[in-house]
Amino acid sequence: RHLGMVGLGRMGGGMRDRLRAGGVEVTGYDRDPQATDVESLEALVAALPAPRAVWVMVPAGAVTSGVVDELARLLEPGDLVVDGGNTKWTDDEVHARQLHEVGVRFVDCGVSGGVWGREAGYGLMCGGDAADVERLLPVFDALRPEGPREEGYVHAGAVGAGHYAKMVHNGIEYGLMQAYAEGFELLRAKDLITDEAGCFQAWTRGTVVRSWLLDLLVRALDSDPDLERITGYVDDSGEGRWTVQEAVENGVPAPVMSASLFARFTSRQDDSPAMKAVAALRNQFGGHAVHE
Amino acid sequence: RHLGMVGLGRMGGGMRDRLRAGGVEVTGYDRDPQATDVESLEALVAALPAPRAVWVMVPAGAVTSGVVDELARLLEPGDLVVDGGNTKWTDDEVHARQLHEVGVRFVDCGVSGGVWGREAGYGLMCGGDAADVERLLPVFDALRPEGPREEGYVHAGAVGAGHYAKMVHNGIEYGLMQAYAEGFELLRAKDLITDEAGCFQAWTRGTVVRSWLLDLLVRALDSDPDLERITGYVDDSGEGRWTVQEAVENGVPAPVMSASLFARFTSRQDDSPAMKAVAALRNQFGGHAVHE
Amino acid sequence: RHLGMVGLGRMGGGMRDRLRAGGVEVTGYDRDPQATDVESLEALVAALPAPRAVWVMVPAGAVTSGVVDELARLLEPGDLVVDGGNTKWTDDEVHARQLHEVGVRFVDCGVSGGVWGREAGYGLMCGGDAADVERLLPVFDALRPEGPREEGYVHAGAVGAGHYAKMVHNGIEYGLMQAYAEGFELLRAKDLITDEAGCFQAWTRGTVVRSWLLDLLVRALDSDPDLERITGYVDDSGEGRWTVQEAVENGVPAPVMSASLFARFTSRQDDSPAMKAVAALRNQFGGHAVHE
Amino acid sequence: RHLGMVGLGRMGGGMRDRLRAGGVEVTGYDRDPQATDVESLEALVAALPAPRAVWVMVPAGAVTSGVVDELARLLEPGDLVVDGGNTKWTDDEVHARQLHEVGVRFVDCGVSGGVWGREAGYGLMCGGDAADVERLLPVFDALRPEGPREEGYVHAGAVGAGHYAKMVHNGIEYGLMQAYAEGFELLRAKDLITDEAGCFQAWTRGTVVRSWLLDLLVRALDSDPDLERITGYVDDSGEGRWTVQEAVENGVPAPVMSASLFARFTSRQDDSPAMKAVAALRNQFGGHAVHE
Repeated sequence: RHLGMVGLGRMGGGMRDRLRAGGVEVTGYDRDPQATDVESLEALVAALPAPRAVWVMVPAGAVTSGVVDELARLLEPGDLVVDGGNTKWTDDEVHARQLHEVGVRFVDCGVSGGVWGREAGYGLMCGGDAADVERLLPVFDALRPEGPREEGYVHAGAVGAGHYAKMVHNGIEYGLMQAYAEGFELLRAKDLITDEAGCFQAWTRGTVVRSWLLDLLVRALDSDPDLERITGYVDDSGEGRWTVQEAVENGVPAPVMSASLFARFTSRQDDSPAMKAVAALRNQFGGHAVHE
Repeated sequence: RHLGMVGLGRMGGGMRDRLRAGGVEVTGYDRDPQATDVESLEALVAALPAPRAVWVMVPAGAVTSGVVDELARLLEPGDLVVDGGNTKWTDDEVHARQLHEVGVRFVDCGVSGGVWGREAGYGLMCGGDAADVERLLPVFDALRPEGPREEGYVHAGAVGAGHYAKMVHNGIEYGLMQAYAEGFELLRAKDLITDEAGCFQAWTRGTVVRSWLLDLLVRALDSDPDLERITGYVDDSGEGRWTVQEAVENGVPAPVMSASLFARFTSRQDDSPAMKAVAALRNQFGGHAVHE
Repeated sequence: RHLGMVGLGRMGGGMRDRLRAGGVEVTGYDRDPQATDVESLEALVAALPAPRAVWVMVPAGAVTSGVVDELARLLEPGDLVVDGGNTKWTDDEVHARQLHEVGVRFVDCGVSGGVWGREAGYGLMCGGDAADVERLLPVFDALRPEGPREEGYVHAGAVGAGHYAKMVHNGIEYGLMQAYAEGFELLRAKDLITDEAGCFQAWTRGTVVRSWLLDLLVRALDSDPDLERITGYVDDSGEGRWTVQEAVENGVPAPVMSASLFARFTSRQDDSPAMKAVAALRNQFGGHAVHE
Repeated sequence: RHLGMVGLGRMGGGMRDRLRAGGVEVTGYDRDPQATDVESLEALVAALPAPRAVWVMVPAGAVTSGVVDELARLLEPGDLVVDGGNTKWTDDEVHARQLHEVGVRFVDCGVSGGVWGREAGYGLMCGGDAADVERLLPVFDALRPEGPREEGYVHAGAVGAGHYAKMVHNGIEYGLMQAYAEGFELLRAKDLITDEAGCFQAWTRGTVVRSWLLDLLVRALDSDPDLERITGYVDDSGEGRWTVQEAVENGVPAPVMSASLFARFTSRQDDSPAMKAVAALRNQFGGHAVHE
């Protein structure tokens, strides 16, 4: 099996390594001359035996759409494109249609695991036609963690379902992180607790809250128990926003996911216009902060 | 009718004025020599005809409990104490019992209206025995806004019920303020809207969201349309906290009240320990803010 | 001034009445023969002097777009269309462009006030070019409540701004209603409070939480103090959803608005898939509900 | 080492087994004749060599306080009591003082792990004086999971700190469960996703959201993929409530924990008084569900 890979950054580069270690031949293309195996996308396509399979692993949005445009031009009927980036699931159908017009197949694949995936394997959620997914199984098997296939891989549904599942995965991730974070703040606020970092570490085995994220938090607290070297400024990826918007669209209550997202919004504000308004109101009905 | 009043600050002073304007004789005592009518609590008690009625209007907590202690010592059987401050409802029973031992009656009364109450009248919620409440009706009638009695006054239940109702009133108030505040921030965030202050003003008549708080917000925006002179730092009184704790205690979902309270907590933080933890976690599973 | 009005239902019919009472000539068209003044949209257009102004007051979405399609066909350059329905603000630009192609002007106008507006006046928020808005001022003045124009009317910005402001208005409305509702449930849950309906009524004058919505709640409690004849099943209009999605899109924390929306979602569920999952989890780590 | 254990239910019984397997001699007392090793608490005390150590593992509240009362009567100076139940941390100080008066030492210990702990080991968080904790280390070592001591055990602070840490642990647990649950509901709501259970299973390896709770959810979905045999009715233990109340008390924003708690409250309601109030309000300003 011989796979083309477009995008060899932190994720794509690690995946190339893991695929090769797993016995899959990979030819990679990246704009970075240090990282790339070939000089151009054209050269990549030329290097692959037909029917080709090309895995796209570049930033979501315009960059991904640009690569799909080029591949639609370069590939041949029967070839197959996988989008493994963080693409919004609604874009998948657009890309699938565009490639379909030139006879090229499309599969979307959400990839989880971050920089740790190279060693531990990547969690994979894919969407597309069964036959297309079938063609990619050797690739998926090399990328996913060892163990039963179904514990690191799912064919979640038609085109778009892979990115949709990954989106929901990230929404859940927001909630999990915020839950630990609230616990951290509460332990810190209470003088009675003299070893917050120790509590988190003690939870890593045997308890109901043990998880990989907890292990990571313990790692972080190990080198910086009070998180003094970190600012509470948290970005959010599009996926968290899409999850909440999808929940709203589908009439699904999502108080935890939305609270986690809003906490990130707030974390990036120098001052809050909303809280200015509340302060203004309190000021209006009193000047008497005490008596109302 | 002749009422004693202890505490002549912004609230107590305004209430004395309104009572006198309403035909109730008031003798007031305050530690501030400029404000007080008599030199001491003893003098206040001496000045009142038995059976006496004394309205306590001082800061909740230790100060109020101190005044109740003194009154328990000074008053005579058949006298009556009203606590009109922002006392926690659980304290009312304690005070009532303490006074009961010396034959003194007790009524608690939540008072809303802030500095505007002097002119507009104060919203009153009281708790206690029917006969005690009955004795105070002329006082309540002078304090409350004009119009039907039941539109500015309620006997909400036994001792504690007045402060409980006032506590819930304040919990609702938190939610109302936060709702307007979120709307303000959203209008401000959207370039399409070029007249945020104008929107709020346009809502003051005819719309579903018209209210007194909206009128106050329009006042605030009138002099400072972007709220530039105000910092989004918002204190919270005990009552908001008690309301959420009571909701939890009674198994009542209170997502809006708690969200409003938490927004105030957050508004006062220089940095958020919780969001430090989230940032630390994101850092751990990547350094790759983009790809996860 | 002579206005055409399409849609004479509860809102449109009430607006026709108020406009006529305010000295504006109105010719209305509705599919309902009992309500309509003319037999067809063609007849409506024929009855109006050029340059015409036609107010569209029909259900948002396909129905509104259908009417705009027809008007684009029937009207002449220089005519003007106002969409007063609950249209999503993103549709406004589409309609404006479509009409622009045939030389017809467009203004969007959010209308608040419900069935009460006929007597009390309607709160109006409009979007569009200044000259177009100017043409409509006599109509706006007749529709809005008496008093200063700016207290019942705003020109909020370009096309779409009126519906955007109305959308935010509704988001706020959700939050206000939920705040009162949580207070109601807490008072009901507490035995100490023996007169919940009385508390709400007592808040209508003098208090910080007084509002038109509170007056309406008092009306409802007056005829049904325990709300026994009402089921806690609450629909949501598109506008509440759009507000939360816009907040997310613009990075604005909206915990109160989203909590209010989610409470409505939950109110319509026979059983909650999410809570099934939580119950399943609790079951897994124990069967021992007590000890974990 | 010889430990007395009071309470041999699901948790206490499993702990006795694990302690014995770990080389700790245990004499247990339970009211259930099938479970107990001795006939009475007196017999238990008589069977233990001084200085004694007695682990109390009975329901929190009155039952635990009753056992502490009896032990205060039966034990001798130098003996030690451990409360391993789900006692509220504020009770610990009361119990410690009570035992202190008769020269008996006290340690509180939060225990996590449920029925799985017997095999996997129990996560332990304890509070008390260093010397008392030191005496119990062999017991803690036998109970906790294998691996480094600090990954399944923490001395979190003075008396009460163990139960406090466990309380926060449970608050986090609520948030984690709700996050997965919201994701489950969203995947179920979306037709595009055809294998929800498969998604959850695919997340168990390699992904950011992998955890023990996720493993349990996969177990539950394995036997009942649509959770048809489970009702979305979820109890809450005191610990979740205490966590939110403590967060409020300490000014710590806890939107995720409180949302998770409130979702449980709601899950148990036949109808929601709050949503009745919202429905009543919507009814008041219209009957026109459509137009507002």
